[in-house]
Amino acid sequence: MTDDRVRAAAASGLKKILKPVAEDLRAVDRVFDEILRPPTPQVRVMVDHVKRFKGKMLRPALVMLSGRCFADIGEEHHRLGAVVELIHVATLVHDDVLDSADMRRGLATVSSKWDNESAVLLGDYLFATAFALSSNLEDRLASRYLSWVTGVVCQGEIAQVVERGNLDLTEEAYLDIIEKKTAYLFAGSARVGAEYAGADEPAVKALTDYGMKMGTAFQIIDDCLDLEGEEARVGKTLGTDAGQGKVTLPVLQYLRTAPKEECRVMREKLGSGDPDVRYEIRGRLVESGALEYAQEQARRFATEALRCLDVVPENRYRETLAEIARYTLSRQR
Amino acid sequence: MTDDRVRAAAASGLKKILKPVAEDLRAVDRVFDEILRPPTPQVRVMVDHVKRFKGKMLRPALVMLSGRCFADIGEEHHRLGAVVELIHVATLVHDDVLDSADMRRGLATVSSKWDNESAVLLGDYLFATAFALSSNLEDRLASRYLSWVTGVVCQGEIAQVVERGNLDLTEEAYLDIIEKKTAYLFAGSARVGAEYAGADEPAVKALTDYGMKMGTAFQIIDDCLDLEGEEARVGKTLGTDAGQGKVTLPVLQYLRTAPKEECRVMREKLGSGDPDVRYEIRGRLVESGALEYAQEQARRFATEALRCLDVVPENRYRETLAEIARYTLSRQR
Repeated sequence: MTDDRVRAAAASGLKKILKPVAEDLRAVDRVFDEILRPPTPQVRVMVDHVKRFKGKMLRPALVMLSGRCFADIGEEHHRLGAVVELIHVATLVHDDVLDSADMRRGLATVSSKWDNESAVLLGDYLFATAFALSSNLEDRLASRYLSWVTGVVCQGEIAQVVERGNLDLTEEAYLDIIEKKTAYLFAGSARVGAEYAGADEPAVKALTDYGMKMGTAFQIIDDCLDLEGEEARVGKTLGTDAGQGKVTLPVLQYLRTAPKEECRVMREKLGSGDPDVRYEIRGRLVESGALEYAQEQARRFATEALRCLDVVPENRYRETLAEIARYTLSRQR
Repeated sequence: MTDDRVRAAAASGLKKILKPVAEDLRAVDRVFDEILRPPTPQVRVMVDHVKRFKGKMLRPALVMLSGRCFADIGEEHHRLGAVVELIHVATLVHDDVLDSADMRRGLATVSSKWDNESAVLLGDYLFATAFALSSNLEDRLASRYLSWVTGVVCQGEIAQVVERGNLDLTEEAYLDIIEKKTAYLFAGSARVGAEYAGADEPAVKALTDYGMKMGTAFQIIDDCLDLEGEEARVGKTLGTDAGQGKVTLPVLQYLRTAPKEECRVMREKLGSGDPDVRYEIRGRLVESGALEYAQEQARRFATEALRCLDVVPENRYRETLAEIARYTLSRQR
């Protein structure tokens, strides 16, 4: 993958990249809107707020693109898209409780606008709605597979909480956690998209693998962004990972490679609980090349994701999936 | 319903009442145990702790009894029993976060043994596991219906959080909230139990109604117990409802009937946030007859529940369902 193509993907932006399925995503939006009309008035006002968390709809886009690589798609795919976005938004609402975050995509989080209790219960309601929607599909594959995937996502998040502050985590264990908490839902989205479009087994497997690799790259970059982004651009509170002692790949690489005394200082800073420390942590991670190492690993996963697409028929939808993998990396710039 | 029969139900205890389905409940236990074996080690230790929250398995018992009223039952019912218990335990784990409770059935809550983050995520994992289990059943009814019921339960809980401290809540709105947050899962358990045993439509409806009425009685008594129980016997932190300004039927009745000045004092006390105030609140609610009124309403719902059983074939399982309705009330003594 050339730097030029990554930069081109960055410049065009995700919305433009997803143009081939823009019409589909609007249909997903409509399903999302229709299904989220709780009869209880106290819930409706919260749901209306949360609907605006949808963001770029990357997971539904994976369902659509993976489907359109193989066949024309319709309502079933749009519903599947709404299911994966609902699961994603439910995890976001709960994440904001865990992170005590005040802002999400430039909006107040549920926990800050209402309270933690409402945020926990609203997340539960979104999960239940996702499962109700998926279990109403004709074919049972999606509800079976996506409820299992959701369980995996939760396991990844729990492991992350438990390992918070464990600076002796191996890179392997780190990758296992981010695969579960992030990449599985990407993989699941791509898989159901392909499977419901009648793709054959090798193609379904290839797209599942694509989602897993791309999702891993996406999360590594996300962890890097927490160290180097700008709050205004990323649209969420930054530095929370470092502040909370969350272990990211740049941190692990630093601790694996830096001289003993510098490791000791870094361990101290990471454990200090001082939010201002993140600027200094960042400086050390950049200068030492640890951040660059993590970005290089992300690039490796994105390249593997691209390779998975080889068995998929060549068309504009496959090209869009390739663009997404490149875009994933461009988020670092 | 005579006082003698209520007292008899109280004396025999729920475990003895449920004896006709004791073998079934052991089978449910085994399913529960098998399905809850998460591969992630950090999650397994939490799940093993939470397995002990199962308690009396009242909801699975409703599945079994409603099934056995009509036919011999087997693995499908045992799985359904595990599904409703998983949903219930998931809501308990999240409830403990919301209530900041330290103890649950004599055990440390997840939030106190680990932390709130883990408790939120573990609850999510339990929900996802419930949906995975139900979507793997041959028939899709349960996964469709029970995911919808879960959404209703969440809506009831959110409404309760939002209306906390609203001392002008009507009795109708109060009943709507407790129906959603508690009675719907009882009703859902009874419904799937009957439906999967091939009961005809009127019988399924009767058992659904039975669950709804019995569940409403159960929750009214639960709200009363929070005011009058003993911590050691009930096995959870008491007085949290009054302390948190949660509006219960005795409180609403008091405010509807007491003289103006006494209402003003009660409103002040309920809003004080002082945990010690609950003893005084209790005194006023008992003396005024407001607690007795609430218990009378519970009795009315339990009697209606019994009446629903009229269309169900007469057998020991139907008699057990009747015993449960009586037991519900006996919890007050």
